[in-house]
Amino acid sequence: MDPSEVKIPEMKDLTIDNITENVHAINSQCPDPRLKYLLERLVTHVHDFARETRLSFAEWEAGLQFLTQVGQTCTEVRQEFILLSDIFGLSLLVDSIDHPKPKNSTEGTVLGPFHTHDAHAEENGTVLHHDPDGTPCLVLCTVKDTDGKPIPNVKIDVWETDSKGFYDVQYENRTTPDGRAVMESDSDGIFWFKAIVPVEYPIPHDGPVGKLLKLLKRHPYRPSHMHFMFEKKGYDHLVTALYLRGDPYETSDAVFGVKDSLLVDLGTVSKDQASEYEVKEGSKLMTYDFVLVTDTEAKELREKIAMEAMKAQGRKMKLYNGLPIPDVD
Amino acid sequence: MDPSEVKIPEMKDLTIDNITENVHAINSQCPDPRLKYLLERLVTHVHDFARETRLSFAEWEAGLQFLTQVGQTCTEVRQEFILLSDIFGLSLLVDSIDHPKPKNSTEGTVLGPFHTHDAHAEENGTVLHHDPDGTPCLVLCTVKDTDGKPIPNVKIDVWETDSKGFYDVQYENRTTPDGRAVMESDSDGIFWFKAIVPVEYPIPHDGPVGKLLKLLKRHPYRPSHMHFMFEKKGYDHLVTALYLRGDPYETSDAVFGVKDSLLVDLGTVSKDQASEYEVKEGSKLMTYDFVLVTDTEAKELREKIAMEAMKAQGRKMKLYNGLPIPDVD
Repeated sequence: MDPSEVKIPEMKDLTIDNITENVHAINSQCPDPRLKYLLERLVTHVHDFARETRLSFAEWEAGLQFLTQVGQTCTEVRQEFILLSDIFGLSLLVDSIDHPKPKNSTEGTVLGPFHTHDAHAEENGTVLHHDPDGTPCLVLCTVKDTDGKPIPNVKIDVWETDSKGFYDVQYENRTTPDGRAVMESDSDGIFWFKAIVPVEYPIPHDGPVGKLLKLLKRHPYRPSHMHFMFEKKGYDHLVTALYLRGDPYETSDAVFGVKDSLLVDLGTVSKDQASEYEVKEGSKLMTYDFVLVTDTEAKELREKIAMEAMKAQGRKMKLYNGLPIPDVD
Repeated sequence: MDPSEVKIPEMKDLTIDNITENVHAINSQCPDPRLKYLLERLVTHVHDFARETRLSFAEWEAGLQFLTQVGQTCTEVRQEFILLSDIFGLSLLVDSIDHPKPKNSTEGTVLGPFHTHDAHAEENGTVLHHDPDGTPCLVLCTVKDTDGKPIPNVKIDVWETDSKGFYDVQYENRTTPDGRAVMESDSDGIFWFKAIVPVEYPIPHDGPVGKLLKLLKRHPYRPSHMHFMFEKKGYDHLVTALYLRGDPYETSDAVFGVKDSLLVDLGTVSKDQASEYEVKEGSKLMTYDFVLVTDTEAKELREKIAMEAMKAQGRKMKLYNGLPIPDVD
């Protein structure tokens, strides 16, 4: 490029104290105001972190080496950066920010690194998991709106581990999805399938995130749970999970996913249910009534909370595509 | 592991407001107080960043995808995370923190991603670069201490690009190092070699960092420079570079490396020098007197500045292996 086209403020003699404003200046020509704001805050926090801790060269080098290993551990079926975000509570935080929930709607939780896009579409009554060692569990749920009206034709992704605590994608010889399906709620908002009782399991800890957990003397376990993801035009995307109450890891989940409202007690399949759903009487039963919020409800609540949070920053801000940016006019 | 051994505070119902303290709590059993402090500050900044910006799920996902690509772009000879740190000014900041310089000593600058450990040890007078298209440049330097006394036997790594702006490692068919050497200062603190005049060049911008620069409307250029790294027991490690004054990118270096004190004007080889150093009379000449600080000088200055910075945090702190940690006794 022609250097005469360089239209950034002149920089030289950068110091510990003036580097941040200079990086902001050089980034200030970004035409996307939201990206510009995100980078301004990111650079400020990263620099403040280094200044506050007096970050040493050796620590910086070890940190970059760690991030490199995290990136290189990622494959088609393993996302180590999501895992890192999970164990730092960032995933839970972002989900809470992006999907605020009015009272009485179903709370969200972490997506985790094991959702895939290749699960087969299945009818109500499908066998979700074929693991013969799993304890059979009938899952019987409804999807409603905040007024209590059933929502039909919601696309529902469901996924769980086998009885050993492994997802299908963790097996090298996986040929077809198992323990996962894409369901659809019927005209009464009902969806149901034959699963196995979820078990506790460690998140993958043979990589850099596992090494970090060890250094921190943290265990890698997640309490027993089953994942659900809900999607329907007009409704706010819901990523959530149901947790078995009383699990030994209920209050120390490695990825901070547990919420009181998502804890369930397993019931028992009655004689009538057994014949209606073609499962054994007395087998395990998981039921839950999910409540979705509309896009409009979510947007209003998200923007209301964002406005309140921006006020606390003591800076003139405005919303841009629903997200905060500095108001500089 | 036995869940009864879980000795962390009970967590559940985590929210936007309480997640940070809970992550601190779960990390609080880390036996290394420095790592614990680094993670406490890192988690705080990452969470504050998400809260302040109301980071959306889509932005979080794009960010993790970007970091994954950065990690996967790294190879034996390319460190894309260092490059990312460079273009955010973090590398320069960390170097400034870790290697404070008393007045009259040589300032440090960014290492960059192209230093290797396979450069050959060479005698004074070596030909650093064999590129026939380069403009020959005799480099004639001294290394002294802050009292002006020559320092012999300093190990000096030198590296520069060819005349097209590429380092040897950027060529796929590289078989042996070129444009790099490990020198040693003689008993008068002198080291010299036959290089080529440095040229401006873009940092590698065919990867994710290059894409980011493009989004930010930033150019990827570095002004013409030659890298130097100094190592001798008892002296603070010095990573620096000399920049050609008047380069068109002098005040807009993509990686924030330029300092006034590191700008040089090229001279001309005199008749006497030509015969002494066996180069052509009238060819280009680069001279510089580098000044190293002792480990003791650097340590004292680093700790003095760290103490001042800690005071500003309004928190009781102490030094641990020379680096700040909270003082919790």
